[in-house]
Amino acid sequence: MKLLELIQKRQSDRKYTSQPVAEDQIVACLEAARLAPSACNSQPWKFVVVNQPELVAQVGEAAAGLGMNKFAREVPVIVAVVLEKMNLTARIGSVIKDKEYSLLDVGIAVEHFCLQAAELGLGTCIMGWFDEKKVKRLLGIGNRRVPLLITLGHPAGATREKVRKSQDEIVSWNKY
Amino acid sequence: MKLLELIQKRQSDRKYTSQPVAEDQIVACLEAARLAPSACNSQPWKFVVVNQPELVAQVGEAAAGLGMNKFAREVPVIVAVVLEKMNLTARIGSVIKDKEYSLLDVGIAVEHFCLQAAELGLGTCIMGWFDEKKVKRLLGIGNRRVPLLITLGHPAGATREKVRKSQDEIVSWNKY
Repeated sequence: MKLLELIQKRQSDRKYTSQPVAEDQIVACLEAARLAPSACNSQPWKFVVVNQPELVAQVGEAAAGLGMNKFAREVPVIVAVVLEKMNLTARIGSVIKDKEYSLLDVGIAVEHFCLQAAELGLGTCIMGWFDEKKVKRLLGIGNRRVPLLITLGHPAGATREKVRKSQDEIVSWNKY
Repeated sequence: MKLLELIQKRQSDRKYTSQPVAEDQIVACLEAARLAPSACNSQPWKFVVVNQPELVAQVGEAAAGLGMNKFAREVPVIVAVVLEKMNLTARIGSVIKDKEYSLLDVGIAVEHFCLQAAELGLGTCIMGWFDEKKVKRLLGIGNRRVPLLITLGHPAGATREKVRKSQDEIVSWNKY
């Protein structure tokens, strides 16, 4: 499959079949994330794969607040993405240039995960809205941030058309 | 090409041939970026493509500080990634959950760009270290952040082996 087809196929899948996800497929998605680039090759991430059904339901419940992410209560797998300390070079750069490279890095790694899932015929949804304290308590994550959760499963819905701004709206040449 | 091969092929390319990059290839990379997911579909990005040789040299010079990114002075194309305001939903979420979704989003879009370039046989380098004020002045970018620059060209070097932590170091199951 061409990359563009893969990009079209990757979408926020919020409904999954009851089929469990094979462990080797989860590992394949993690492998894509593992190879992601990061500022100064810091790799400031850890991935906690949750696939014990009771624990998945609890973590999913923590994502289902204020009417958001209700679907997360019934998903086969959730991966919690933990922000780890960058290496010294990246930390110094982040301070001097006043930008948090590690969030840029995590975005890249998470998207590798999701594109790999799409290639395997799996569906994902990246969630930024959840009760972070509760998730950290459930998974034993101490003094670290959890910027994102990813749900993973066999999608039960069809591929939707993407709604995006046009290139005219987001691209300019040699001048802003 | 399988996604994993593409991921292996994408690397920080710091040396390019003198061959210019065809405009339709640049547009193809931008198309991959355009279709990237973002929090609340905010698409908080603009891409300024710099391909006028004199201007590229000036922007590249702004990236070559303190002995870093010297190669950027001689590249065919530089794309400046501008952080735009998120939509209201994403902004509220960012404040309540105390995380800057837009940086995660920009990471994803930039990686789409780079993976698409790799598929086309082009090379990229994502740069987070540069004189942002100077870049903004050169391109007429007002009161906005420029978190990243991307260089683009026909790579002159070979594909290197990736150095990454092992899965054992970055993955755990059902517990941090």
